[in-house]
Amino acid sequence: MVLEIHTEIRETGPDRYATLIDGGWAIGSSLNGGYLQLPVVRAVLAAEGHPHPVAVTTDFLTAPHAGEAEIVVERLRTGKTVGTSRATLIQDGQPVLVSSVVTSTLDSSNPDVDLAPPIELPSPDQCTRIRSDVMPGTQLGLMDHVDVRLAPEFANLLRGRPDGSMALRGWARMVDGRDPDPLVCLLAADAFPPVTFTIGRYGWAPTVQLTTYLRVLPAPGWLRAELRGRVLASGWFDEDCTIRDSAGRLVAQSRQIARIPRVPVPTEN
Amino acid sequence: MVLEIHTEIRETGPDRYATLIDGGWAIGSSLNGGYLQLPVVRAVLAAEGHPHPVAVTTDFLTAPHAGEAEIVVERLRTGKTVGTSRATLIQDGQPVLVSSVVTSTLDSSNPDVDLAPPIELPSPDQCTRIRSDVMPGTQLGLMDHVDVRLAPEFANLLRGRPDGSMALRGWARMVDGRDPDPLVCLLAADAFPPVTFTIGRYGWAPTVQLTTYLRVLPAPGWLRAELRGRVLASGWFDEDCTIRDSAGRLVAQSRQIARIPRVPVPTEN
Repeated sequence: MVLEIHTEIRETGPDRYATLIDGGWAIGSSLNGGYLQLPVVRAVLAAEGHPHPVAVTTDFLTAPHAGEAEIVVERLRTGKTVGTSRATLIQDGQPVLVSSVVTSTLDSSNPDVDLAPPIELPSPDQCTRIRSDVMPGTQLGLMDHVDVRLAPEFANLLRGRPDGSMALRGWARMVDGRDPDPLVCLLAADAFPPVTFTIGRYGWAPTVQLTTYLRVLPAPGWLRAELRGRVLASGWFDEDCTIRDSAGRLVAQSRQIARIPRVPVPTEN
Repeated sequence: MVLEIHTEIRETGPDRYATLIDGGWAIGSSLNGGYLQLPVVRAVLAAEGHPHPVAVTTDFLTAPHAGEAEIVVERLRTGKTVGTSRATLIQDGQPVLVSSVVTSTLDSSNPDVDLAPPIELPSPDQCTRIRSDVMPGTQLGLMDHVDVRLAPEFANLLRGRPDGSMALRGWARMVDGRDPDPLVCLLAADAFPPVTFTIGRYGWAPTVQLTTYLRVLPAPGWLRAELRGRVLASGWFDEDCTIRDSAGRLVAQSRQIARIPRVPVPTEN
């Protein structure tokens, strides 16, 4: 399986790459964190030689803007089976984000053990697609690239009716119909609304640190996702995302810590 | 609440510190990852000024040895509320581990929301302490520093009787009786046996990347922990650890990805 190209990178020197940040992959004016990781992980794979990301942790430092950016890769461990690199996305001379990327080779076979619960969902046709114009006054450009569909009971969120569950379930795939790969999984893990929507906090939830593990190569077709937040404390909330492929295999797990949105603005009541 | 000193650091220059790695904090000949993070996080707190770690992700690169080591802190974001730094532990000129540390101020009040299940355990007296000499031929020096007690149904593990659950529950506190703080939580999150013991793989499970979120300041007394692994795939397993304090409040959550132990050596049958 070949990794699809989602975001071009161009080598400019040893372990240095140039990329172009596309302003379309945004929620309102904020570029999506899942998207921003893709050129960075691609740069690490190009620099290192292992075929797949296994663990990616990103610290988001400052908001980038559309346009040119540079990626600097530092190879920290170059083992035969496992590599570890750090990569920094730089714009206007400032670090925008820093990722720790563990690389190795993912199997395309089934996991040897899978004790996570299944993700039960009605078919994509019976779910509610999040369209880029669903929130008045806020353009969700990301949703023109990723087709995200929420289970029917969660569609109430889009009408400002929180259920307090801190949980969301839904489908994701690329709008162009392309089959998923580990980079699409990285993207899908950060493409859903924050679970704080379910407790009536509809504001922007700035992710500070995001970790995604990639477990096996995904089968073609839709990805199904379950998001779950557990604790709000000290101004922060956590959010886990579990992703299964069309064959039901667990392909990715993510966890992030983010600031609790300050602005609880329901769109209707 | 003052952060206790677990491992001394000494400033040697701007954002540079010296520390001494104590060979006693080991499982066999391998120094414990939780312990190794402590001087690194202390160096970040000293360099930055925010009082507490909120998220710590560590990439373990190579095995350190007892003796002198250097810590270099790079401050990536120095906000009023949130800081982010990277710190590298260096020995013999080589990076041993690299940590991304998000810092801020933790509340001592209860979490605003806590949807994680409670951790049910019999009292510490009714649980089985893991003593440093429990495994023939392998000295568990870490257990002379941390008092780790497994729930009775899991004590079978120590006799080589796996139950297949990928789950462990137990208590932890410092042997010297000192009350927990965020650094003790960081330590406790990596002080239990790997969940792969429950599927009969008793070998060393090398952690490659470990992330711990600290949520509120812990109350005095024992910490209770629940560990859960979900997937073995492509040569890797994941392990979550949830830690509650003596008041039942969720104080820390960790997740790690590690290589599956190669040597399934039950000590008895």
